[in-house]
Amino acid sequence: MVSNDKIMNKPEKINLQEKFNLISEYRAPKIVGELNGQHVKLVKLKGEFIWHHHQHEDELFLVVKGRFTMCLHTGDIDLAEGDLIIIPRGVEHKPVAEEEVEILLFEPATTVNTGNVINEFTREATY
Amino acid sequence: MVSNDKIMNKPEKINLQEKFNLISEYRAPKIVGELNGQHVKLVKLKGEFIWHHHQHEDELFLVVKGRFTMCLHTGDIDLAEGDLIIIPRGVEHKPVAEEEVEILLFEPATTVNTGNVINEFTREATY
Repeated sequence: MVSNDKIMNKPEKINLQEKFNLISEYRAPKIVGELNGQHVKLVKLKGEFIWHHHQHEDELFLVVKGRFTMCLHTGDIDLAEGDLIIIPRGVEHKPVAEEEVEILLFEPATTVNTGNVINEFTREATY
Repeated sequence: MVSNDKIMNKPEKINLQEKFNLISEYRAPKIVGELNGQHVKLVKLKGEFIWHHHQHEDELFLVVKGRFTMCLHTGDIDLAEGDLIIIPRGVEHKPVAEEEVEILLFEPATTVNTGNVINEFTREATY
């Protein structure tokens, strides 16, 4: 899955804050790494996302800066810096961030941000 | 790959610092999450690890607290809090930490900590 000889042969450091500083758009995941068919993505959220699930992919959210609430049908979970949560495939979820939050996502390269829902929030992750 | 109905149906928050506080042994990875056949592990390192590589697994290191040096044949890379590095399969590496460092690892569930080398540093990751 590694598409780049440079990455393959000469690992390089990725500083999360530097990468987040380059992101100006909310809900637009940026791919910063790839391993074992999985993507490491960074996303800034603010506001309410949509209820959705991923049929075939488990998804990890790690809060790098700020806080947000993961709404779940089993109860909402507040997450702050240094918290992570894994949303198993099939589990409906809706992230809500009152203020800007910086999140690291870890998920299969095939994952679409809005899962089973395709709407104006649907965005292809970019490099 | 999810082995637990509770995890499957009711995602729970994982606070990294709380989990690290439970770790008293160096070089003994603890599994704190599982998704898509991959493990999220936490490990504390201090001192010099060994040169090794993983034949079939790419490995992600994210510094949660402290700093360490990833020795590579292409040059050493210093990593501090908020830095990550992906070591592709086959690439020899040796982590060295002068002081205690807390690292999140992301790698396939099959990964052995010392890769191709089996010695006194080899440890099975535990929950």
